[in-house]
Amino acid sequence: MSELLSKATELDAADPLAALRSRFVLDDVVYLDGNSLGALPAGVAERLQDVVRREWGELRIRSWDESGWWTAPERIGDRIAPLVGAAPGQVVVGDSTSVNVFKALVAAVRIAREGDGAVERDEILVDATTFPTDGYIAESAARMTGCALRPVRPEEVPAALGPRTAAVLLNHVDYRSGRLFDLPGLTAAVHAVGAVAVWDLCHSAGALPVELDAHGVDLAVGCTYKFLNGGPGAPAYLYVRHGLQERFDTPLPGWNSHVEPFGMRPGYTPAAGAVRGRVGTPEILSLLALDAALDVWEGVDIAAVRRKSLALTDFFLECVARYVPEGAVECVTPLAHEERGSQIALRHERAGEVMRALTARGVVGDFRHPDVLRFGFTPLYVGFADTERAARTLAETLPA
Amino acid sequence: MSELLSKATELDAADPLAALRSRFVLDDVVYLDGNSLGALPAGVAERLQDVVRREWGELRIRSWDESGWWTAPERIGDRIAPLVGAAPGQVVVGDSTSVNVFKALVAAVRIAREGDGAVERDEILVDATTFPTDGYIAESAARMTGCALRPVRPEEVPAALGPRTAAVLLNHVDYRSGRLFDLPGLTAAVHAVGAVAVWDLCHSAGALPVELDAHGVDLAVGCTYKFLNGGPGAPAYLYVRHGLQERFDTPLPGWNSHVEPFGMRPGYTPAAGAVRGRVGTPEILSLLALDAALDVWEGVDIAAVRRKSLALTDFFLECVARYVPEGAVECVTPLAHEERGSQIALRHERAGEVMRALTARGVVGDFRHPDVLRFGFTPLYVGFADTERAARTLAETLPA
Repeated sequence: MSELLSKATELDAADPLAALRSRFVLDDVVYLDGNSLGALPAGVAERLQDVVRREWGELRIRSWDESGWWTAPERIGDRIAPLVGAAPGQVVVGDSTSVNVFKALVAAVRIAREGDGAVERDEILVDATTFPTDGYIAESAARMTGCALRPVRPEEVPAALGPRTAAVLLNHVDYRSGRLFDLPGLTAAVHAVGAVAVWDLCHSAGALPVELDAHGVDLAVGCTYKFLNGGPGAPAYLYVRHGLQERFDTPLPGWNSHVEPFGMRPGYTPAAGAVRGRVGTPEILSLLALDAALDVWEGVDIAAVRRKSLALTDFFLECVARYVPEGAVECVTPLAHEERGSQIALRHERAGEVMRALTARGVVGDFRHPDVLRFGFTPLYVGFADTERAARTLAETLPA
Repeated sequence: MSELLSKATELDAADPLAALRSRFVLDDVVYLDGNSLGALPAGVAERLQDVVRREWGELRIRSWDESGWWTAPERIGDRIAPLVGAAPGQVVVGDSTSVNVFKALVAAVRIAREGDGAVERDEILVDATTFPTDGYIAESAARMTGCALRPVRPEEVPAALGPRTAAVLLNHVDYRSGRLFDLPGLTAAVHAVGAVAVWDLCHSAGALPVELDAHGVDLAVGCTYKFLNGGPGAPAYLYVRHGLQERFDTPLPGWNSHVEPFGMRPGYTPAAGAVRGRVGTPEILSLLALDAALDVWEGVDIAAVRRKSLALTDFFLECVARYVPEGAVECVTPLAHEERGSQIALRHERAGEVMRALTARGVVGDFRHPDVLRFGFTPLYVGFADTERAARTLAETLPA
């Protein structure tokens, strides 16, 4: 047994989260793509059968009340809340991340312009390296609120902020590089100029502590199908902090966000609280699969998850350094812990081809255009032996 | 056996669609709420198990390609297309009805304003009696496009149209009264002033022929959980006719509608065709439950569905007239076939209480604020004996 394999075995034996792997349906594949689609939690299939056969099939329309369907978006939001450092009543689940970015950014601009007197805020800043949908939706939000959209690199945000800034859309962890940004510092900088911060948590929630309340974040959105394992295309969530809820003026005032949805009133009066972020009828089957998936978090400490995440990515880098010839790949992810999310991105000019070969050998990561091999580490089910095998297989797979 | 019960038995025996009932999971309840939540089609639970256990659980990320997840919104759209009289390539599934109303109305205003020269179109007309969410969303679409929203009763639409009209949002069938509106005539009237028509098909699709292509409808939206039986909160659909697709300028340009979604381009370039109506990652579990649910339409002629729908509602009215004392309820639904959808709405001052009592006796309809008893007739699984029983039970239930 190689030295690194022995070390992996020791690390697995000492891992306080090791038993959590049994909460998922897994095989002998090393699955390092949980930052794209989380693995299937063990209880989901059974729960969904009950939802379909009994709640829909037998109770039918009565389930909106009797099975708690109607209030599921806010109830499940409250289950996500502790994972992102939010007190109850501030997170609501529904719609896609893209749709939630639209809600949040338009609402952010409207909030920033309130009572601002002489200052005309007409600029939205967006991370220029963001996952594209955030940029596309930000462009539309800017167009529809009469703002200009200004893409800037995250490190340039502080200098770009000013009295014209209405809202800033930032990523907590970059989808390609895995870089973790300074959420407290950037939020404070945005607030210092009177603007509103919107954070995209897609690549951080479930992998590391987010602490939205503690850092005074205004609005945040995130998906639930990556580190939260909610299933393919599981509904996204929207966080609106308590202090802004009364001022949250949504561009998508669907009937589910009405104070009296079954009153069938011709005029729109928004509900109080996180419910204000709802729009139309929620996709119940996807939503309740997510609900069941969240059971895996029972008793899990997100700080322990973060410790394991860093240990896994450190160990992966150690194994890559040992197994892969120097210069064969370039690590794009920051080495400093405080700047690292829960993935390692390696640059290789033939990354697409390398990832196909790796997948064929049972190590699944993904490829991000044009040249990035992306390896996501979900601490709930990835172990150190998996990590060693991934690096070893990578070394065997790389073209000579 | 009463005369009407004998008649019901004869009608059921002669019903060419009677066998379709076996395609659903039903019990001895008379389910007249399929216009709110359609009953469970027989194959859905099994299909969803396969999606969860094999496609998500075993194939995981590979299912986006290998299980056809990525293209499901347009593929399933093409399965709905024949039910609304649309040639392939014009319907895409995803998001809620409310979100699709927003996309369609904003896009409609933008189309109407193109190349219009001197005419400033700054008004959106909306059915004043619409299901509330359409009105709320129309208000937001108006606000964000610099239009005024003008609610008018459907019969007043022709007179209200003018050179300032940008877009008109109409219901094919009214959710409360069950009134069927003149889609061809109103569409032609909207076109005559150079405006764009958006139709809400929630209460017509699956119950009667819609014929979008034949009548030159511009844009349409609809839900899939009523007469299409797609499951609770199943994703809605958006129709954009071929001739307008190049000009469809969406307010929600999510990455799923990009011409090259995995190119990760910073700039947005929309895809051609119905795909342009997509936004973010689709909620796959809800979407594929709908896919399975659409199997019940195999070999079904929508004209035959319409014939049975009218026969059922005629027979219900006949039974109500016989069993219920004159004046005890008032029928809100038009008697003329050309003005009737697939429901009967009866007004009663204690409608909420009456519906609770009916439900307790195994006849499930619903109550719409403030005084409407709503009975929806889904021709695929409701029979004439069910209909007789519903009217008889209603008579027994009404307060003396």
